Amino acid sequence: MSVLVAGSVALDSIHTNAEIHNDLLGGSASYASLAAAFSSKVHLCAIVGTDFPAEHRDLFARRSICTANIDTVEGRTFRWTGKYHEDMNHRETLDVSIDVLEKFNPRLTPEAAAARVVLLANMSPDNQLAVLDQCTAQPFVIADSMDLWINIARPRLLDLMQRVDLFVINEDEARMFTECSNLVTAGRRLLAMGPRHVVVKKGEHGAMLFSPSHFFTTPAYPLTHVADPTGAGDTFAGGLAGSLAASPHAPEFKDLANGIVHGSVLASFTCEAFGVKRLAETTSAEAAGRTAEFRACTSWGS
Amino acid sequence: MSVLVAGSVALDSIHTNAEIHNDLLGGSASYASLAAAFSSKVHLCAIVGTDFPAEHRDLFARRSICTANIDTVEGRTFRWTGKYHEDMNHRETLDVSIDVLEKFNPRLTPEAAAARVVLLANMSPDNQLAVLDQCTAQPFVIADSMDLWINIARPRLLDLMQRVDLFVINEDEARMFTECSNLVTAGRRLLAMGPRHVVVKKGEHGAMLFSPSHFFTTPAYPLTHVADPTGAGDTFAGGLAGSLAASPHAPEFKDLANGIVHGSVLASFTCEAFGVKRLAETTSAEAAGRTAEFRACTSWGS
Repeated sequence: MSVLVAGSVALDSIHTNAEIHNDLLGGSASYASLAAAFSSKVHLCAIVGTDFPAEHRDLFARRSICTANIDTVEGRTFRWTGKYHEDMNHRETLDVSIDVLEKFNPRLTPEAAAARVVLLANMSPDNQLAVLDQCTAQPFVIADSMDLWINIARPRLLDLMQRVDLFVINEDEARMFTECSNLVTAGRRLLAMGPRHVVVKKGEHGAMLFSPSHFFTTPAYPLTHVADPTGAGDTFAGGLAGSLAASPHAPEFKDLANGIVHGSVLASFTCEAFGVKRLAETTSAEAAGRTAEFRACTSWGS
Repeated sequence: MSVLVAGSVALDSIHTNAEIHNDLLGGSASYASLAAAFSSKVHLCAIVGTDFPAEHRDLFARRSICTANIDTVEGRTFRWTGKYHEDMNHRETLDVSIDVLEKFNPRLTPEAAAARVVLLANMSPDNQLAVLDQCTAQPFVIADSMDLWINIARPRLLDLMQRVDLFVINEDEARMFTECSNLVTAGRRLLAMGPRHVVVKKGEHGAMLFSPSHFFTTPAYPLTHVADPTGAGDTFAGGLAGSLAASPHAPEFKDLANGIVHGSVLASFTCEAFGVKRLAETTSAEAAGRTAEFRACTSWGS
């Protein structure tokens, strides 16, 4: 089965204490598509400007990502500039240039519209709903979001949450959205807002998965060096989506748990270099090796 | 086999946003002994004043904790008053009355000195070394510490670390001690300071275990309500120590991993009420049930 990933494709400039990199391939859909492509055919839906470098498009093609749903319009590609604090757990946005993203009017090819797993990666709830309205195959729908949309587009985000099978959010945003400091309670409150499942991403501390009747929690793959955590959450969601699409049956709770581990392992690669560099070089064998290593370092009993 | 637990026995006053409780049984050795007693015979070594309530001594006896190594001297028992911030992850000390703790000169009975597992719960490195010097059975030695001793008694703490099999510390203190924000690197740096193993406690996010050749990571048991986290770390260390003493063979890495899960599960009970109340009421069946539940909510694959 295939995955449809819709979200932003961007050119990122990233500042850490150690390095500055400009105009890297970024955006929620770039990371998520590259991650989903480890397990499944991927349709990438996004908008870019005429300045979008051919080499990035070539990278998607090399990783077997269908780019027929990338709309290229006159103007500049969406750009984001961010700076990480020393501990790499917090960042601030230095600059955002929306440019062509304002004109985004997603239009799906029939093949993309028929995807059985749909990842609505981080972008405005309006755009997420516009994509969802075009889907034809009653897909399993995953949606990611961020503090910006919770603050400025809450009603539309709540509309979206009614329609998703799995809502993904990071821990700070989960606390903010639910006004609750306890993350387990926050996850349950998000579940009560409509989605069939909720994942709370905790970065270096792993992730938690909630359904009305089940719960799963996992630590993160242990990294000693984080060069750039940008896109780790998008990679996580993309890896999860790809993992679900690789299975012939409708996702059950244990498939979601396995997908979370897979997404978490892929996210660890993303953190090891700036932008998509490390993820785009990662082989399936490397990912499988790290999953086996993760199994060994989380096992207990007997 | 038996466990020797040495540390503080205190009367705690605890303030949270919701409640204030005064003169509760507290101290590192109280929580740790109650936790260790789930799996093993325990010798508790500490000092108290003549004001120490008989009911607390009765509680130790009821949980089969040997109190022959509790020294009772003229004066007031050590008291600590602390206040938790709203998120329950940070606290400040409002008042400390050392009193009889200043006179602590640990003297072990031959039975306590012959324990095969020794937990040097949080107290001054001088007192921890004084206990260790009296041990006669080449025990497996666990030591806990805190920011105070890192700041005011670092050379003695470093002496101690050369002599312990497992050094336990919380995440903020690990970062402070090693001046490193990455917790995996911080754990490895602590290992390089001498102990054969290191555990970094991450509270609601679980714990990590390091040895030169192995690594283990686990999330925490998911709690929706934390009434009072005081003593959770001491409970964790005590549960781990008791678990190791329950085994007939010398601890291997997988025994430490299992002990960490057991300690983590017991710590979850401690958090559910003020002081030792919930832990002291917990049955072995409840602990086993929660361990099975934890297994279910951390399992993935196949």
